[in-house]
Formats: sequence, C-alpha cells, structure tokens
Amino acid sequence: MIVVKVGGSLGINYEAVCNDLASIIKTGLRFILVHGGSAETNLVSERLGRPPRMVTSVSGYESRYTDRETLEIFEMVYCGKINKGIVEKMQKRGIWEGIRKSAITIIEDGKRKVLRGDHTGRVERVNLDLIQLLLEHGYTPVLSPPAISYQGEAINVDGDRAAAILASALKAEKLIILSNVPGLLKDVTNESSLIKDIPFREIDNYVLYARGRMKKKVLGAVEAIRQGVKEVILADGRINKPISSDLIGSGTIIR
Amino acid sequence: MIVVKVGGSLGINYEAVCNDLASIIKTGLRFILVHGGSAETNLVSERLGRPPRMVTSVSGYESRYTDRETLEIFEMVYCGKINKGIVEKMQKRGIWEGIRKSAITIIEDGKRKVLRGDHTGRVERVNLDLIQLLLEHGYTPVLSPPAISYQGEAINVDGDRAAAILASALKAEKLIILSNVPGLLKDVTNESSLIKDIPFREIDNYVLYARGRMKKKVLGAVEAIRQGVKEVILADGRINKPISSDLIGSGTIIR
Repeated sequence: MIVVKVGGSLGINYEAVCNDLASIIKTGLRFILVHGGSAETNLVSERLGRPPRMVTSVSGYESRYTDRETLEIFEMVYCGKINKGIVEKMQKRGIWEGIRKSAITIIEDGKRKVLRGDHTGRVERVNLDLIQLLLEHGYTPVLSPPAISYQGEAINVDGDRAAAILASALKAEKLIILSNVPGLLKDVTNESSLIKDIPFREIDNYVLYARGRMKKKVLGAVEAIRQGVKEVILADGRINKPISSDLIGSGTIIR
Repeated sequence: MIVVKVGGSLGINYEAVCNDLASIIKTGLRFILVHGGSAETNLVSERLGRPPRMVTSVSGYESRYTDRETLEIFEMVYCGKINKGIVEKMQKRGIWEGIRKSAITIIEDGKRKVLRGDHTGRVERVNLDLIQLLLEHGYTPVLSPPAISYQGEAINVDGDRAAAILASALKAEKLIILSNVPGLLKDVTNESSLIKDIPFREIDNYVLYARGRMKKKVLGAVEAIRQGVKEVILADGRINKPISSDLIGSGTIIR
C-alpha cells in the first residue's frame, strides 16, 4: 500500500500524476491518492470576491483563515473541481455512463440553432458494483451528476432521469422525486390543484400538465416504471419530514 | 431499497430532508439519496462572471448549456458544496476525524491576535472501514480534506498531515508527498541544492531548511515515520512520471 499526496500549488502536473498512477496501478500495486487544491482555491476565492486570508500562527505555520463561506469555497474546489477532475482522468467507469451530445439543436428567438461544445449528455447505463458494495456494508450513497461518457469525459446529465435509471437498475420499490412544488399540479399557479393519484396506464392523459422542470421529472417517472420500479412519487421538498410523509402517501403517486 | 431524488430549486428544505432521512435510516430501511443543485449553480455562475445560459431543445425541454468552464462550476456546486453539505449533515463519522479550533492565535503586523469563527482543525483519528472496503475491492480512493470534527462539522485540515496520518493508520510502506519543488532544498532559491537522503535519526538537523508550505510536509513526514511508515519521499509533482520516478528513487528520501 502506497499513499501519494499531491499538492495544490501552481505548476504541478496533474495530467502526468494521473497518467503515471493509472499505469502503475495496472502492475498490481495498491495506492491511495490524496490531493490538495490551494492555488485554485485562491483563484476561485478571488473571483467570488472573498480573497484568501492567509494567517501565520504563533509557532510560524501559515494557514488559510476559513470562515464558513471560505470552507464552502474550499469544498467546491477540492471536492468538486479538483477531485472530480482527477477521477475523470483516471477512471474508466463512473456510476452513470452515457453519451455526450457535443452539439445540440436549440430554439432561440424562435429560430433553430446548432450549439457546439456542450458537455451535456444522457445516461444509458448504470454501474452498480460500487453502489451495491456500499449498500451491502450499510452505507447510504449520496450521489449527484455529472455522469461519465463512454469516452471518459464528465457530462452534465439530468438528475431526475439519472435517479430514475438508478432506481430501475436497482429494482427499487419506490422512487421519490422531491422538488419545490407539492407534486404534479393541474394548474401551476395553484398548489391546491395537486393530482394525487395517476394510474400508470393513464399517464398519457397527465403528461400535458407538466411544465418547466416538472417535464423531466415526469419523463423520469415514466422511464422508471417502464423499467420495473413499482411506484414513483413526485413530492414536496420544502416541508418538514418530506420523505416520511411520502412513505405514508402524499404528493403525486404514479403506479 | 428506496431512491430519493431531491431537487436543487430554491425553497427546498435540505435540513429537513437530511434530518428526516437520518431518522428513517435508523429503522433499517435502505436508501440512496440523489441530489440536484441548479439554483446554487446559477448563483455561483453569476458570481464567477459566467451567467447560466438555459437553452430549450426542439422538443421543448430546457437545459443548461454546459461549456467546460460551466461543467467545472457545476461540479464545484454539486459535488463540492451541496454533496459535502449533505454528507456533513448526515454523517457521524468521516474518514478523518479531529478537533476544530474555532479560535486561533495569529501574528499580524508583528502583533498577536485571536481570530474566531475559523473552520480549521487538526486530524486526530482515521476511520479505515470505508477505505479498506474500497481497497479490498480494487478501488483506488481519491481523497482530499475537509475532515470532520467530533461535533460533525466539516473542518479545513492540512492535507499533508492528513495524508501522513492516513499512511500511518494503514501501515503504508511509503508516503510520497508531491509538490512544486524537487524536494527539501538547502537553498530555496536553488533547485539543485536538493537534499537527497535524510536518515530519520538526523531529521532535527534538516528541519530548519524547510520554508513556507514545506514546513508542514516535513512535519507530516516526521509524524508518519514516528507512527510506523518506513519511508517518506518529498518529490517533484511538475515532472513527467512523478510517481514511478519516486518509486525508483528521486526527491528527498526520509527513512
């Protein structure tokens, strides 16, 4: 077992570190990689209008003064940008795998346009090995996009549909989708117009009520049920006990 | 198995979602939590001078146009800020546990000052359960600070010392610390003044050469060897094959 710590100062060649490590791992040596991110944290802090404040302790050590906002910037850079960048470089298989659509056709000012350089895609496959290992040992995975493309690039994918595909692959009994509305509404301006129950065979009659972000949630629900999830609940993430309320029945239940 | 997806729109009560989930998990139900982060990503994008560009596809779905910089902002918010925030709320035990020192004494303009509200601390204990589970199944963990305090708050800790404590706890053969210099230098202005070999019993004669960020790396090295790691290598993270070069011997070797 070898632990490698790679610093976060300017000039460090992360590309080389990752390539090198990936090829050594193939020889069977076991590694843990611990990384820094200080130079990038300074940069992002400056850009966010919170310039870093380095302080020197009485014993002569320099460190970053970390108020709560700085801590969150620090987490964004270390755990978000740097960590995911390394993992993207090294891994062949993410949890969610899919295709990147680097060009998309959009409608802008009423006209069709092709937009290139987009890091967006669609999940096609779920790798359950790691998820199941964690579940079997009592961990509760906390996941979010991005997914990884078959070419190994991080891609922005829709979280609702990613959750739906994951629920299907795991043969989950329920998929609960929480958002900032009570569920699917007949009239988006009226929260008391909640549709409580949708028999799946009648889903086509209800899809039209979905507006804005709710469209992909309904699409995710349809995909999940088609793939074997028994019940999808679209529910309110603003309330107290949002999950236990759903377990006993609230929001829009599709089954 | 239940999959919960919680959206990233304004108003969603993440505190309640986490509290609720934490208490339901105790009943033995198994969950996966998938989260979003769109509203926060919009906010951070704006603040970084890259306002979000929402596009509408021909089929009427709205999505975020994601160039590489937007993808990295997206990862910072989703994987860094939101994910770590949730895990902080829910978990009792992180990989690295330690104490938060919410007040530190610093030297500024030649004067001693007490600074409060700092989310910084020191690692005292390592939880190996998850790390070992992953290693045994062929995964290569990629880690970074923050650690978690005994009170469950995320704390900024020194990455070199965190790596040293991890290496000790795992009884690693080697700890390799890569930075943007070739190793410990006799003269920081001259990269050819590299100290190649330090017998650990003579470490006190060399500690004085460490300047700036190198101080904590040497401190980490000393702690690691005291706790049973056989060899610590301070080496250059800017070169091609930075790790295999170290395995065959380059940089400063302390043993």
